[in-house]
Amino acid sequence: MLRLAISSLLKRLPAQKALAHCDGPCGVYDPASARISAEAVLSMTKKLLALTPPEGKDSSEWATYNNTFSRFVAVKEEQAQETKKELLILWTDYFKPEHLASFPDLHDTFWKAAKLCSACKVNIDQSKTEELMAAVEKVHHMFWKSKGRSDSWTTAS
Amino acid sequence: MLRLAISSLLKRLPAQKALAHCDGPCGVYDPASARISAEAVLSMTKKLLALTPPEGKDSSEWATYNNTFSRFVAVKEEQAQETKKELLILWTDYFKPEHLASFPDLHDTFWKAAKLCSACKVNIDQSKTEELMAAVEKVHHMFWKSKGRSDSWTTAS
Amino acid sequence: MLRLAISSLLKRLPAQKALAHCDGPCGVYDPASARISAEAVLSMTKKLLALTPPEGKDSSEWATYNNTFSRFVAVKEEQAQETKKELLILWTDYFKPEHLASFPDLHDTFWKAAKLCSACKVNIDQSKTEELMAAVEKVHHMFWKSKGRSDSWTTAS
Amino acid sequence: MLRLAISSLLKRLPAQKALAHCDGPCGVYDPASARISAEAVLSMTKKLLALTPPEGKDSSEWATYNNTFSRFVAVKEEQAQETKKELLILWTDYFKPEHLASFPDLHDTFWKAAKLCSACKVNIDQSKTEELMAAVEKVHHMFWKSKGRSDSWTTAS
Amino acid sequence: MLRLAISSLLKRLPAQKALAHCDGPCGVYDPASARISAEAVLSMTKKLLALTPPEGKDSSEWATYNNTFSRFVAVKEEQAQETKKELLILWTDYFKPEHLASFPDLHDTFWKAAKLCSACKVNIDQSKTEELMAAVEKVHHMFWKSKGRSDSWTTAS
Amino acid sequence: MLRLAISSLLKRLPAQKALAHCDGPCGVYDPASARISAEAVLSMTKKLLALTPPEGKDSSEWATYNNTFSRFVAVKEEQAQETKKELLILWTDYFKPEHLASFPDLHDTFWKAAKLCSACKVNIDQSKTEELMAAVEKVHHMFWKSKGRSDSWTTAS
Repeated sequence: MLRLAISSLLKRLPAQKALAHCDGPCGVYDPASARISAEAVLSMTKKLLALTPPEGKDSSEWATYNNTFSRFVAVKEEQAQETKKELLILWTDYFKPEHLASFPDLHDTFWKAAKLCSACKVNIDQSKTEELMAAVEKVHHMFWKSKGRSDSWTTAS
Repeated sequence: MLRLAISSLLKRLPAQKALAHCDGPCGVYDPASARISAEAVLSMTKKLLALTPPEGKDSSEWATYNNTFSRFVAVKEEQAQETKKELLILWTDYFKPEHLASFPDLHDTFWKAAKLCSACKVNIDQSKTEELMAAVEKVHHMFWKSKGRSDSWTTAS
Repeated sequence: MLRLAISSLLKRLPAQKALAHCDGPCGVYDPASARISAEAVLSMTKKLLALTPPEGKDSSEWATYNNTFSRFVAVKEEQAQETKKELLILWTDYFKPEHLASFPDLHDTFWKAAKLCSACKVNIDQSKTEELMAAVEKVHHMFWKSKGRSDSWTTAS
Repeated sequence: MLRLAISSLLKRLPAQKALAHCDGPCGVYDPASARISAEAVLSMTKKLLALTPPEGKDSSEWATYNNTFSRFVAVKEEQAQETKKELLILWTDYFKPEHLASFPDLHDTFWKAAKLCSACKVNIDQSKTEELMAAVEKVHHMFWKSKGRSDSWTTAS
Repeated sequence: MLRLAISSLLKRLPAQKALAHCDGPCGVYDPASARISAEAVLSMTKKLLALTPPEGKDSSEWATYNNTFSRFVAVKEEQAQETKKELLILWTDYFKPEHLASFPDLHDTFWKAAKLCSACKVNIDQSKTEELMAAVEKVHHMFWKSKGRSDSWTTAS
Repeated sequence: MLRLAISSLLKRLPAQKALAHCDGPCGVYDPASARISAEAVLSMTKKLLALTPPEGKDSSEWATYNNTFSRFVAVKEEQAQETKKELLILWTDYFKPEHLASFPDLHDTFWKAAKLCSACKVNIDQSKTEELMAAVEKVHHMFWKSKGRSDSWTTAS
């Protein structure tokens, strides 16, 4: 039992030291940033799936359809990029070598989440955006667990 | 009359003090920045309204139409965003509490102008872009009046 | 009483219509974005206040001090700018004319909050950053109230 | 004389054709953008020259000096970059081969102006920023002459 | 022969002095940056030319076509802009007045290359992108010659 | 032996399929982008180490020192960020699950390289920048090996 106590103590120590070497000067990390942009990707994907091209050749109907479509794709693209950026900040700056013990699938989790961001850009695919939301939720729980907190998962919409 | 003179004197004093606390370190404000991008929004909107989708299914005609349409929407979007940004710099950094006496509709003017920028993004609507130009012209006159100048309104095109 | 019921009904109707005209195509708004960057401003300000210039003329000590100082100021600047941007998105895109009835100090609240962002850039002033945090918390409560939710205020650090 | 008339006619024709092929889709060019940022460079340079380092070792005095210095350098840098960008948009997008006849020193004017932007970044040198203002004024006159207008040169400060 | 030796010596000297005054503080210039983005422009242009609009009115087929088309145009635009930016860094910051003797067509080369970047944005035109690649290759050889190296031209794809 | 041949064949097949699903629409990847910015980080670090603060209290000497120091730190910061961004594009978009067989240390290599980018921001430490150059060189060799090429490692300076 002493062994266990020591080992758990040792596990905490390097983490605290790591915080001291933390390169993100502000030290404020929050997976909510990734969650908010992932929600936007999901929302844009649904809105894009609901759009229908005009029946005829009316210029003004095509203009409305194309203006909306173009803007929605651009927002989806930008927000998927933002989600990827926010996830990679957590992976490269927040998580430290000593976290690998608690989260042996750390690299794989982030790699797949980043690839899902790309997939949401390439396609208009609601199931991919839902997989992305699930990946961000997994990161949310890993992150707060590593901080010794258990913040619940809430979304804006 | 003395009272009036003193009151007008007092009105000027806080404004000068305000300049000394000005947070925009360069202190160079010019509503021409908002005007130039609003002109671009107007120009793009007109050009978008003039585009017509191809009659048939020719890939290369559709490519030309879509390339031009996509770029024009992106420029309209970016320039409407730029107009909003430049307007909000004036509202948040240049205008000070003491200006509210001379311009009691200050907040409302900027709020509506900012919302017009958004409306020009959502739609391809020439009358909205003309309303935006009028809003920017109103800001131009408020701004130069607050500086004791009366620069005339000229556009690039 | 019927009158009251109708009036409260009418109040809700325009709000729903407004959502339909919402210009932010994704419709995902969350004041957490402003809160996260405001926390970073507070953190950087505290860290800047804790830095001390080297005693002597040692180049390498000055290099360390200046490198850290320069980076911290840049992050404070960027995060204060981000806070302002996120607040103004809520003011210009989320809040609609019908919200003015419930929040008559809407414009004033956002104007002061935006000016606090600027003040946090100009100075290294912990009390200003705490005022900014309070302003963002006020916006948090206004926002969720307007959505009929009462999400509690939690911070990352 | 007929020859001269024809040649001057021909000179105008390609210019008009060129406008039709103009790649800047909005077609709105205005040297005021370069002028506003060049004014900011001049303003920041003057403000930097007026700063003095603290006498002693007081941390808080050094913090104030360094915060202000760092921010002013960053704004000078950004605005000099912006001036260069706006000048190069005119050089690469607005001016066309047929303008070379009227402005044989076109390339040299822009090359030197761009290099002045860099010089204003490298140094805190008021005479360089005044040379930059003069270069931007020269571009202003070339530009409006090429459009058949003679807008006067006014500055914001 | 002595004359030739001296002249070649003199040619080298100002160049070395110029490097000492170099305004790009890092002094690391590499035309590979322009080449990589020009390759991306070429690749996107080919991919855009290969896209065909759907035969019928199927919403989901149009969504796929439009999502892909919109993204490809945006990447072409961004990469053509990046190519222009990288070329102009070489023109305004790396090349110095003393290089004009060895490269009398320096200005013309960069002006035409910059205009080709714009042409690649306006059109979906493979021959223009190939002209751009040739222009970037010319710059590559000028650049390495000016450094006394003769790096061969290799592409990523 | 047949088994080996088939297995090596299978290894190649998914890789080709993967390219077809590649999310980076242009498909142009080149580790030279990461190398160029890493060289800039190394160069700025050396230049920062060579700077010395003024002996006395002369405002203008301090202004020169601070202007140069501030700019060099900003460029170091920006280029380290750029290096990280370019590395992570390779990790998240270019490398596919089937590459893990050939490069079992793929994740670890990129994680450490990304963390080195951060370390080069936090410190002015030449040995860290040299470790970063080595990490980028390792990525260079992994990348070209995965493409079946063996491009040699050359630097710009």
